[in-house]
Order: sequence, then C-alpha cells, then structure tokens
Amino acid sequence: MAFSISNTTFLSSSSSLRHRHCIPRPFKIEATGNTYGSHFRVTTYGESHGKAVGCVIDGCPPRLPLSEADIQHHLDRRRPGQNRLTTARKEGDTCKILSGVSEGVTTGTPIHVSVPNVEQKEDGYREMFLAYRPSHADATYDMKYGVRSVQGGGRSSARETIGRVASGAVARKILKEFSGTEVLAYTSQVNTIVLPDDLIDHDTLTIDQIESNIVRCPDPQYAEKMIAVVDDIRLKGDSVGGVVTCIVRNCPRGLGSPVFDKLGAELGKAVLSMPATNGFQFGSGFAGTFLTGSEHNDEFYIDRHGKMRTRTNRCGGIQGGISNGEIINMRIAFKPTPTIRKKQHTVTRDKKETDLVVRGQHEPCVVPRAVPIVEAMVALVLVDQLMAQYAQCNLFPINPELQEPLNPVLEPLKVLI
Amino acid sequence: MAFSISNTTFLSSSSSLRHRHCIPRPFKIEATGNTYGSHFRVTTYGESHGKAVGCVIDGCPPRLPLSEADIQHHLDRRRPGQNRLTTARKEGDTCKILSGVSEGVTTGTPIHVSVPNVEQKEDGYREMFLAYRPSHADATYDMKYGVRSVQGGGRSSARETIGRVASGAVARKILKEFSGTEVLAYTSQVNTIVLPDDLIDHDTLTIDQIESNIVRCPDPQYAEKMIAVVDDIRLKGDSVGGVVTCIVRNCPRGLGSPVFDKLGAELGKAVLSMPATNGFQFGSGFAGTFLTGSEHNDEFYIDRHGKMRTRTNRCGGIQGGISNGEIINMRIAFKPTPTIRKKQHTVTRDKKETDLVVRGQHEPCVVPRAVPIVEAMVALVLVDQLMAQYAQCNLFPINPELQEPLNPVLEPLKVLI
Amino acid sequence: MAFSISNTTFLSSSSSLRHRHCIPRPFKIEATGNTYGSHFRVTTYGESHGKAVGCVIDGCPPRLPLSEADIQHHLDRRRPGQNRLTTARKEGDTCKILSGVSEGVTTGTPIHVSVPNVEQKEDGYREMFLAYRPSHADATYDMKYGVRSVQGGGRSSARETIGRVASGAVARKILKEFSGTEVLAYTSQVNTIVLPDDLIDHDTLTIDQIESNIVRCPDPQYAEKMIAVVDDIRLKGDSVGGVVTCIVRNCPRGLGSPVFDKLGAELGKAVLSMPATNGFQFGSGFAGTFLTGSEHNDEFYIDRHGKMRTRTNRCGGIQGGISNGEIINMRIAFKPTPTIRKKQHTVTRDKKETDLVVRGQHEPCVVPRAVPIVEAMVALVLVDQLMAQYAQCNLFPINPELQEPLNPVLEPLKVLI
Amino acid sequence: MAFSISNTTFLSSSSSLRHRHCIPRPFKIEATGNTYGSHFRVTTYGESHGKAVGCVIDGCPPRLPLSEADIQHHLDRRRPGQNRLTTARKEGDTCKILSGVSEGVTTGTPIHVSVPNVEQKEDGYREMFLAYRPSHADATYDMKYGVRSVQGGGRSSARETIGRVASGAVARKILKEFSGTEVLAYTSQVNTIVLPDDLIDHDTLTIDQIESNIVRCPDPQYAEKMIAVVDDIRLKGDSVGGVVTCIVRNCPRGLGSPVFDKLGAELGKAVLSMPATNGFQFGSGFAGTFLTGSEHNDEFYIDRHGKMRTRTNRCGGIQGGISNGEIINMRIAFKPTPTIRKKQHTVTRDKKETDLVVRGQHEPCVVPRAVPIVEAMVALVLVDQLMAQYAQCNLFPINPELQEPLNPVLEPLKVLI
Repeated sequence: MAFSISNTTFLSSSSSLRHRHCIPRPFKIEATGNTYGSHFRVTTYGESHGKAVGCVIDGCPPRLPLSEADIQHHLDRRRPGQNRLTTARKEGDTCKILSGVSEGVTTGTPIHVSVPNVEQKEDGYREMFLAYRPSHADATYDMKYGVRSVQGGGRSSARETIGRVASGAVARKILKEFSGTEVLAYTSQVNTIVLPDDLIDHDTLTIDQIESNIVRCPDPQYAEKMIAVVDDIRLKGDSVGGVVTCIVRNCPRGLGSPVFDKLGAELGKAVLSMPATNGFQFGSGFAGTFLTGSEHNDEFYIDRHGKMRTRTNRCGGIQGGISNGEIINMRIAFKPTPTIRKKQHTVTRDKKETDLVVRGQHEPCVVPRAVPIVEAMVALVLVDQLMAQYAQCNLFPINPELQEPLNPVLEPLKVLI
Repeated sequence: MAFSISNTTFLSSSSSLRHRHCIPRPFKIEATGNTYGSHFRVTTYGESHGKAVGCVIDGCPPRLPLSEADIQHHLDRRRPGQNRLTTARKEGDTCKILSGVSEGVTTGTPIHVSVPNVEQKEDGYREMFLAYRPSHADATYDMKYGVRSVQGGGRSSARETIGRVASGAVARKILKEFSGTEVLAYTSQVNTIVLPDDLIDHDTLTIDQIESNIVRCPDPQYAEKMIAVVDDIRLKGDSVGGVVTCIVRNCPRGLGSPVFDKLGAELGKAVLSMPATNGFQFGSGFAGTFLTGSEHNDEFYIDRHGKMRTRTNRCGGIQGGISNGEIINMRIAFKPTPTIRKKQHTVTRDKKETDLVVRGQHEPCVVPRAVPIVEAMVALVLVDQLMAQYAQCNLFPINPELQEPLNPVLEPLKVLI
Repeated sequence: MAFSISNTTFLSSSSSLRHRHCIPRPFKIEATGNTYGSHFRVTTYGESHGKAVGCVIDGCPPRLPLSEADIQHHLDRRRPGQNRLTTARKEGDTCKILSGVSEGVTTGTPIHVSVPNVEQKEDGYREMFLAYRPSHADATYDMKYGVRSVQGGGRSSARETIGRVASGAVARKILKEFSGTEVLAYTSQVNTIVLPDDLIDHDTLTIDQIESNIVRCPDPQYAEKMIAVVDDIRLKGDSVGGVVTCIVRNCPRGLGSPVFDKLGAELGKAVLSMPATNGFQFGSGFAGTFLTGSEHNDEFYIDRHGKMRTRTNRCGGIQGGISNGEIINMRIAFKPTPTIRKKQHTVTRDKKETDLVVRGQHEPCVVPRAVPIVEAMVALVLVDQLMAQYAQCNLFPINPELQEPLNPVLEPLKVLI
Repeated sequence: MAFSISNTTFLSSSSSLRHRHCIPRPFKIEATGNTYGSHFRVTTYGESHGKAVGCVIDGCPPRLPLSEADIQHHLDRRRPGQNRLTTARKEGDTCKILSGVSEGVTTGTPIHVSVPNVEQKEDGYREMFLAYRPSHADATYDMKYGVRSVQGGGRSSARETIGRVASGAVARKILKEFSGTEVLAYTSQVNTIVLPDDLIDHDTLTIDQIESNIVRCPDPQYAEKMIAVVDDIRLKGDSVGGVVTCIVRNCPRGLGSPVFDKLGAELGKAVLSMPATNGFQFGSGFAGTFLTGSEHNDEFYIDRHGKMRTRTNRCGGIQGGISNGEIINMRIAFKPTPTIRKKQHTVTRDKKETDLVVRGQHEPCVVPRAVPIVEAMVALVLVDQLMAQYAQCNLFPINPELQEPLNPVLEPLKVLI
C-alpha cells in the first residue's frame, strides 16, 4: 500500500494506524554542537529548526580587526540557493557578531557569531520521522541515543557548517595578518569529470579564479563540463560526488607535532569531520603508493634567496608531521549526497521494510558549496597549530641558524588600539 | 668532493673542516612522546637511542585479564628483522608490564609497558647530522625546534610505534572481551600489485590467513607477487609504497560523535598519525566519488534475525559519523620509505647543497610491518569511543526499541577477582 | 575637583577633557565564555549587555526527563532582586531550552539553555570606562587583553553564573535519578556571624530548611542575625563576605582520580572558579591542621547493614582523592563584594590617580545568592566524575566483594521512550 | 586475639585462617600516573615498588639550558631521610634526564626524568593487605577499582611527587629565565605553632632563609618551636599537620582566564591534588570573610616608576581570576599524616572489624617536605598559564597603553645554539 504525506510518497509494506498517529509536531531543536581546537577553540551549535545557528570562538587573539563583513563574505560562498547547482532553498544567512568584538577589534573574550534561521516548513521532515533514509545519519542517531529525535539525524549537518565557515573566516584573517598564509580550495572533480593536476598553477592560483564560476573549478573549460554533469543529474533527481583540492600557501615552517598530532593527521580529522566526506590524502596520496622511493623523494636545494626548498613536493608540504614551508596540498573525497528523489527501499523506525520517495529539497552535488567549508576547516587547524608553535617554540628567541620567524610579513599589523 | 664516514658516503659540494669537527657524539635521547585518547589515554615514549621505548596507558578498565604474552604477540608482528622483507636490524622487542597489572588482571591504575633497546651502533646517524635526508623528518624538526637534535627527526618514528602496538594490544583485548569486536588489517597493495577487493571475504577473513605469509596479504597468489616486488626493490636499494586495508567486525552500533569527532574523522586522524602515511579513506572512498547517489546509497532491510542491516556497505559501516553495525572498512596509503641506498641531492644543516648516500639499514617496504600498527591505532580509537558511548548513552537503561546492548556477548567475562 | 556623570560622582585628581569625550557608547558584547568538564561539558556564554546569557551542555545522557521547570526552579534561587538582601536590580531570568530536549526527554545532543536579558540602562558602566574599580576584574582584563573593553571586566561575572546554575540543574537531576545523590549548600557565615557546626545535622538537612529564610541559613536564629548584619551594611553602602557550606549526600563510593584529578582538587577548582571566592576546604580543613593524627583519623567500622563506614568524618568523605561514601562536606570563602558606595581611591585607564564613587546597583552580600551556584558547580563535578567512573570501572562487571553498584536506587528510571 | 606479622602487630577481632593464607607476595606495580597541564603537560609515573619513578614533560620550549643538577637540587629538598623530621627511610633519589635535552639545552621533544628506586623490603605492606588503614587511600582504591591491589592505595602518593618536583624544577627555570618570576614556599604553621604573617617580608624573602632550618620556616625562633613540636610528636608515634604558605614574585600581569580557569581555581586544583591537603586559600582567604568591602578592597595608585599598583594586597595578586602583577600569596592546609604507630580500630578487606598497629616507617609531619612540592605545583600552573597567555595575547603586538611585556627581563637568554 502507498500513502502520501505532503510532498512525500510513502510506499509502506507494513503501514499501520500507528504511523498516522505519529504525525510529527514541529520541534525546536538544534541537532548538535561540539568543539574543535586546543588553543583556538570553536564550538558550533544549531540546525535548521532552531532560531539560529552559529559558533562561539574561545581563545582568539585580542586586537585583531574584525567585522561582520569579514565573515559574511565566506558565508555567502557557503549559502544554499546561491545558484542553480545547489538546493533551491533560499536562506539569507546574515551573520551577527554578538560578542568578543568592540570598536572593530577582537577583545580576547569569546566571539559569538550567530545566523538566524528563516522560517521553515516542517513537512520536509515527515518521511524522516517514519523511515530511515538510506546512508543518512538518522538511523545511526537512533542507534546511538535511543530517542526518536527526527532533528538529530536530519538536516543538521548542512546548517551546522555555518559555524565552521564563520569561525574559519576569523582563522583565515589571523593567518593572513600574521604570516600572509592563504588557504584556497577548489572543485577538482565532479563525478567522472576530473580536472588534470597540471592545469592549475598552485603558485599563482587566486580566489577570483575559483569564484569565477558556480562550480568553483578554476579552469573554465572543466568548470563547464562539471556544471553540465550537475545540471543533468539534477534533472534526474539523482546526485553526484566529487573531490575538493585545497592548498595552503605561505604556511610557516615548523607547524605540527611529531607523534599523534601530526599536521596531516589534524588536517585529515578536520576535513573528515565534514558531512559526506569519506577520503583524504595529501601530497602524492594514494597515487604515490605506485612510486618507488627514488621516484618519490623530494630533494632539497638552496634557492636564489638562500632558502632551503624542495624541488618537487610529493610530500605535500609536510615531512614527519611538520610543515616544511612548501605549499601544502590535499584532496578530499565527497560521496554523492544520499538524499535523492528516486524510490529507495528502506526500513521504518518501527523496523518494517518500506519504500521511500523524498520529494522535497534536493542538492544534486555538495562539492561546490563544500569548497569554503574545506577552507574553513583547514584554516582552523592551522591557527590552532600556529598558536601551539608560537607558545612552545617562540617563547624564547628562535635560533636563526635553523629557524625562520613565524611571521615574516614586514608591515606592522594595523590595529585600532 | 666525496668523503665517507663509516657506512655513509658523503658527496659534499661544500665540504669544510667544520663538518669534521661535528662528528656526532652518542646521545641518549628519546625523540618524542605524546598522548592519544580521551578515556583510554595512551602516551608513548622512546626511540632507538634511549634505554627503552614503551607506553603508559591511563584509564584502562580494571579487572581485565592481561599478560605480557597478550602484548608480545602483536609486538612480534611489528618487530623488524622478522623476515627478509623488513630491515635486517634484529631486535628482540621483549615487553615488560611495569605497572597496572596485579595477579593477572588490570588494576585500573596506569599500565606501563616497556621494551628495552638493545645496544645500537651510532654510525647510522652520522649522515643525518650533516645533511637533511630528502622527505625525512630531520629537516622539519630543525625548523620547528631550532635545535640540531639528530635524534629528533631520526629513527624515532619507527620505534615509537612499539608503544602504539603495545597499547593497541590492550585495546583489542577489551574490544574482544566486551563486545566480540575484532580489528583485522592486511596488505592490499604493494607498489603496482593491487589485490582486487572481491578476492577477500571480510565476513570470514581470519588473522591466520593474514599471517600465512610474510607480506601479510591474505591471498596467497597476490602475496607471492607482492613479495617478488619487495625482493626486487630491496636488491636495487630502493623502496616501494602500498596500501593497508583494515576492517572492524562486530563493532557496536552507535560509536562516534555527530560533529567534529565523527568516527571516520577519528579513525583518519589515528592512522594518519602513523609514519609514512599520506592517505585515508573508508567505505567507497575516492572511488565512490564516481558514483551517483542512487548507485551509492546503502538500502536498509530486516535480516532473518529481525535486525536492521544494509544490503551494501559503501558507507563503510559509518553513517553520519556514527557506526551502523556493519563492517567498518578503510584503506590507508603508505608512501615509499624515504631512506634508500641511492645517491640523492640534498642540503646540509649548514645550508650547503650536497649529495648523500646512506649505506646503513634499509627497509624496502614498510607496509607489511604497518599492518599490526594500523590495527593498534584502530583499536585505540574504538575503545575510546566505546567508553565515551558507554558513559553517555548507557548510563541510564537503553531504549530497546531503537538500541541494542553495546556488549551482546553472552558469556560472562572470566575475571580473576 | 569632583565631577558627576549620571549616578556616578567622579572625583578626579587629574580630570581632563579627554574623559568627557570618552562617554561610553552602548556595546553589545558578552564578556566571556568557557568550558567545564570532560564528559559532561558545559560552556557558558553571555553577560548583561548581550541579548541573552546561557549555556550549552555537551555529553548529557539521552532519555533523561527534563523540563524548563527543572531549571527555572534553581534560576529563581539565583535571581537578583528576589528579596531585599540582593541587588535591587530585577530580572525575570526566564529560561528556554533551545535544543537537546524532545518530547520531555534529553536527546543526547547538546542542550542549549538560554535566558534573555531585559533591557538595561548603560550608565552603570560609565565609571568603569574611566577608572578601575578597586579589587575588580576590569583592571586585569585590560592587562590581559590590551583592549579597553568595558564589558570584559564588568558585571559579566554575576550574570555568567546563570549558565552554571542552569547546567547544574541538569547535573543534579542526573545525580538524583541515577544514584539518589543530593547536593545541598547553605550560608554558614555572614561577616562575624558564624553558624556553629553542631547546629546542623547533615544527615537530615533539607532544602526546605535552607530556603526557609532569605539568607539561606538553615538555623532560624542565626539566619535572623545574619539578615540583620546584611540589612545594616546595606544602609551603610558597604558590603560583607561570608562562607557557604556544601554537602553531598549519597555520593557513590569510588568517584575521583588518584593523582592530579583528586575529587577534592576538582571540587576546589570548580567552586574557586566562582566570582568572589578565595578559599576552599573540605573535611576538617584548616581547623584540622591543629589536630594530631590520632585525633584526626576516621576509624572504620561495619554498620548494622553490613556496610563499611567511618565513625567520624574528618576527611570529609574523600580519602586519597576518592569518595568513600560518607557525606562530602566543604566550605567556600566569599570575600566582601568590591562594589560599594563609599568613596575609594583608584587609577583611571589613562593611569591617573582619582577618587571614585559608584552610586548604582549595589549588592551588600553575595553569599545567599551564591548558595545555588555552589550547588551547581559541585553537581557538575560529580556528574563528570560519575561518568568517568562509569566508563572506566563499570564497563566490565564490578567486583561485589569490594565494590558497590554506582546506582543503588531500586526503582527503575521513569523515562518516556 | 592478636597476631603479629613482621613489624606489624595485628589485633584481629575476627581473625581467620584465610588471613594467614593471604600473605602478600611481592608486587611490582606502580600505583598511578596522570597528566597535568594544557601547554606544558606533565605525566608522572611510578611508586616505591617499581624500578623507577619520574615524569614525562611534553611541550617544553626548546633551547632552554637544562641540566640534571637543576632538577636534583629540588629533589634533594623533597627527599625523605634528609633530616630527623622526616621518615627515616633513606633514598638517594638521583635523577636522570633520559630524553629531551641535548648538549645542555632542551630540544622541544618530551623530557623524560627518571629516578630509580632503591631496593625495598616488602613487609611494610602486609598490614595494608589485611586491613584498611584509617583515613588512607587503600580503602577507596578498593571501592573504585574492585581489585585488591595493595600498591594502589599504598605509599604511592609520597613517591609520586618526585615527578611533580622534577617537572616543577623545569617550570621554575622557564619562569626565572623568561620573566624573572620566582616561586617560594615555606612552613607557616605546624600544629598549634602559627607563624604570624607580619614576621615575613614577602618582598625580600629568600630561599636561603627558608632552607636555613630543617622545618623550612624562615623565622628562626618559630622554626625552633615547630621543630620541638615535631620532635615531641615523633617520639609519641603520632603525627601533626600544618600549613604551607607560598608566594609568587614578579608574576607577569594578565595570567589566568576569566571563567572556569581562573588563576586562583587552577592554583587551588594544583595544590589540592597533593597528598594530605584539604584546604586552600589565597589573599585574605577565610580571614577576609570577616571584613567589609571598604576594609577589604585594594586601592590602586601609581608608583614612582609610573606603574599601577595596589596599596594593599588582600586579593593576593589575583583580581577576577587574572594576575594583577602584585605578589601572589596562598596558604595550603595539610592534615596530620594518617600513618601513626598507635593502635587504631579498623576493618579488614574481608569486612571484619579489627585493631591495627603499624610499626614501620612513620613520618611525623609532612609539611617541611611538602614545601618544594607546593612550589613545583605552583610553577607548573604558572608556566601553563604563561604559555596560554603568550599564544593568545602576545601573538600580535601588545598594546603598550594598557599592557606590559610578559618578559620584562632585559638581559638576553643565554642559550647554546
């Protein structure tokens, strides 16, 4: 028997009155919140059903010039509905800094950034209440917490990343001001369209190149192909996955820790905490496993400025878990989004098999919107590691024979004091 | 000009008397130590030059039967010199439990496991003192700490993993006793020899199959091919990389945390903290990025025992950062070891270009020995997450409508009390 | 020369035009936020100038019945303006649970409790902008952060404790449901009025006795004396300090950790993180230093139920950093509040000496309102330690020869599932 | 019936054959280990029965000159048997730095300091095996862990503090080199002998004055009285408690954190984690509760160097949880040691009442030996807070209008690089 609730067609193999009694009431619940970082600590909160989402940043250096515009710029890049590639759901996502900034500079006390939620219709959640969506978080939330909390496993993930992007905007500003460090990510694969590595020059890549098209691929021709793939799959009600490449330019040498907190491990954890990710590699990554040591090693040389550099960069800017000053590069795999408009077989919360068709909002490819989130997570890792390195290894004067200053930028910080 | 120290030929383009004065003295230094885990906390210490290496485990449940044999078994699998594929260096690596175990059971207080170092000749380190080995940690240690500490970036990494394997042996014993959870890893790629996925049945794979050959590949024919590749590269003085696949069987449902500490993120960090790793993926991983959502989603069904299962397992046992009870599977990329016997161009610690030939010990492929270390790291993650889940979601009685007991094993634990 | 701004008379020894130009603008800033706990983690945020204050609780067990009324009850006990002993400032302090609770039970995801701020006049802050109040936090905030952030060191402290009381209300509910553990605090000293220990029977003390009068002293006669002292000092525009005694009844045996995280150390840190505290002792405390070992030791005996008990309780329920099952008792010193209406000598933010008279709100004695905050902090410590003990020492079955169940309460938890 | 084992007379009210069968075998177990600190992280390990005790310091700044003599000096101050006031047990307590120091300077990698244990006779532990010593940790260890681990609750505490003193020696060296900060503690009370506050000038107090007598009281006359009290109580086989006062001179302004990690809270936790402590106060402490706000407030003024200071120091150098640059002062209560030679009533591990006489080693007063341990714990807190402040608030240039440099010392650090 098939029944239909709102925009959902529910093909239940075991329908019962009970289901009808369970018509979900509107909840006001945030899905989750948690904390990243040791020195620069970010707690995100909120999801679509609450009044607001956002983050609290604890441990930010004081006297950093910071405005809502600094943050809004990156939130706009993450925003759904920004173009036809994303979900049609339109959200303004306008941020407010509620604390921690006074007269244009950070005060050192916690920075609270909040983004109000616009009113949402609830019916998108009804199918979740009855049946587990395949490959979604709603089933595992039930397994973990033992509560039929529809919001728990719901769209929380997507909106939770607002707090990541907001805090990442602060992190990247610190990196820029302190050491001229830049974090840039872009779409390097959508489904079978794979951007060849050698088309992008990481030394000169700009954010404008990345933002020049809606799929965020810096090569216009590949961008066009990728857009065509997403357009096509959207019409089919299906979804595609892809890969984001991220680089870090002007990363100070010496960031990272030799054992459990290697820089690559921290970066891996940070980006693998993003929704829909299931792979991470840096430097040569999985492709490097096909090389021999003599093919793979990055030989050192002295450049014309007298600096030690490597001729190649197969280690991706990280040796022994510590940054070596070369460009850090990494690739993150995003699986196709599980919410599709096709009929799927699944199980209800009452453990009956059923068929499910979700007719609501649908995002055919998360990769372009993941680009600013990847940048944010990478920036959070780097600021945290930078502060750790500064506290430990710059407390006393550095050894100029072996070390460089962490902040080589010459111009003094323009701070309103 | 070329000069030779002990088993090192040093082709210096800028040799100087200074170098000869810098003949390194024997040091007694551990390179590093650090801590992993929130509930089950492991601190490793030591490297080859100190008297011992090992770990301190804080937070282990009391009354767990534990003997040195439990640990020694896995240390023997990690040990160098165990067969011709590894470095020729022979180390007994005999462990002692110095604390935390009394009359055969854990006491709840810290468990200190120590492995004495056998006497080492020092000359293997001379080339490190003078010049940075390409793609090694010694250069970045200097950049980080500003100290010419040869040991810092030296062989530390290899021997540090003893503490990981020792603590992992305790972790896997807890998993086995508590919930019948098994962690099994094996070599699935060596250089260009790639074991096809469908040759291995993860439901029935045994440790005996893995240990049946020296390359730790459960398929005998592929094992033979892999061994031939390593044998060949060893004779050439070069090295090769590869991939370790790791699975977790009978993982309780509900482990992991929804936001920053997703189970996949924790596993990624743990294995990416191992030396020579630069890639991690679980479930479909990078290959999954080529699929559509309708091809990729894992549909739910009810099995003949009335349990909710997924028909496929492209999510690798993890949905929304939380274990779903299916087999967790992951793949870890190991780059070719950087220490090779071929001449390489590099830079001295005094910032002069030079050529370097290392003639000492040489490990042509770390992958087979990495297998028990991967298992250890995965077990450490799981115990930590298990204890977190137990503290939060099993403090009050579980909800049997949605949840299963974390420890389904029927027989009571055989504990000496 | 003396000048007056709003309700502040400013007697400047170095007045200048500059001061007049610095009339503070209204800010919208929370002072601070931070996190307590390892398992049951509480982050508080907000102060009087923002739109709201509150807390986010991470790690709360799911399926605990929880309503806003549970929390509001304790917030009302903390609220200023509740009677004539506190500041006249009237705040409703009505809490909302914004996340983490669904259909009357906790979901396991973060619980966000928010309390809106009612509109405040700004002029109470003007004197802070110009001059450092003696013994207040505003001077040290400037030293720490280097920003003239009036809010930083302002009234933040007082309102920040709302988040503590709210999260403490959840903690004490867990303790009550899980193990029947009760946390009770009361005023035991106000200035020179010292309640004799032997007047209060800790075995039978009830919260009704404590709440029977506005100074929260369970002995009516001493309560009257204390109230008279506070009434008197209020008229003088001065303030008095005092002591809060706190007890924990039915604390499970075995909570606490043997080395750095001893139970007494954790309790000490928690209550010493409250504003205006500068002393903590448990058991015999400083008075015990005058006894000999033979006078001080608590001898063990077997009670009529066959349980091991101590005849005396000079160790305050904690031996070797671990709870022994006896009543935990502790005393916390509160200094007189620094904000008084008397003229004081001080220094401006421009480092000029001046005289200061603050005419705004004035709280003559914080001790009665500190009572529910002390209870909250103690409950937060105990829940965190309880979850730690449960994860480590109750993962496997306990040893009934030496241990008792952590949760001896017989009736099953009434949980809506 | 009374029976005697070795140097123990056992007066059992419920003797049984079982007791005789339980003759304890020699164990080789460390009692415990744990970690303090966020930036400068110390893990201590070991107790008297293992081969060694010590600590691992993680996160120490590199390039700090450090020798074993720096550490040994303070270990000698802690050592038992150093004079007649302590236990007669003689231990050399000679430390070795096993890692983290190379050519006289720290390398930035973990510093492992180890102190071998001299051979011990086991019989001191027999009475512990049979019966719980009143007010000791052995009973609560059993309650916590459910294992009859004699060592767990044994003498562990005393010897565990070696690791604290060793790591504290490194911490105080950093403080001295970085900012000229000094930590000095002394005995200010032994039983009823209370050193009046005004006899000691904290501005000029020296370690030589403290070390001039065996009770570590800087006033010779009071020292004599205290020594007489300890001598007297030792002959009686009893014990006495007392108080240690600790001051911090030249503490940088701005250390500490405004909410849960207030400087006073951190100091309180650190010293309350020491064995036998049950009280802590800073500034006016409990005595301050008898004052009014107008009597208690510390007025600010500008000193002749143009620095802002307070005329009095009732806040003990801490305002709002943050150091204000004045001398930090605190008092710590130590109860009389529970191990005495008098007959006491207690309960066996089999829950039978009994009488117990311990005839072994006996320390009549721990206070003098606690002095260097208090200093160590305070130094650990300060270094951790210093590094936190340096990372957050000195990453960008400070604001000289409101802030001072953290390290005002003019002479450059003498570092071997």
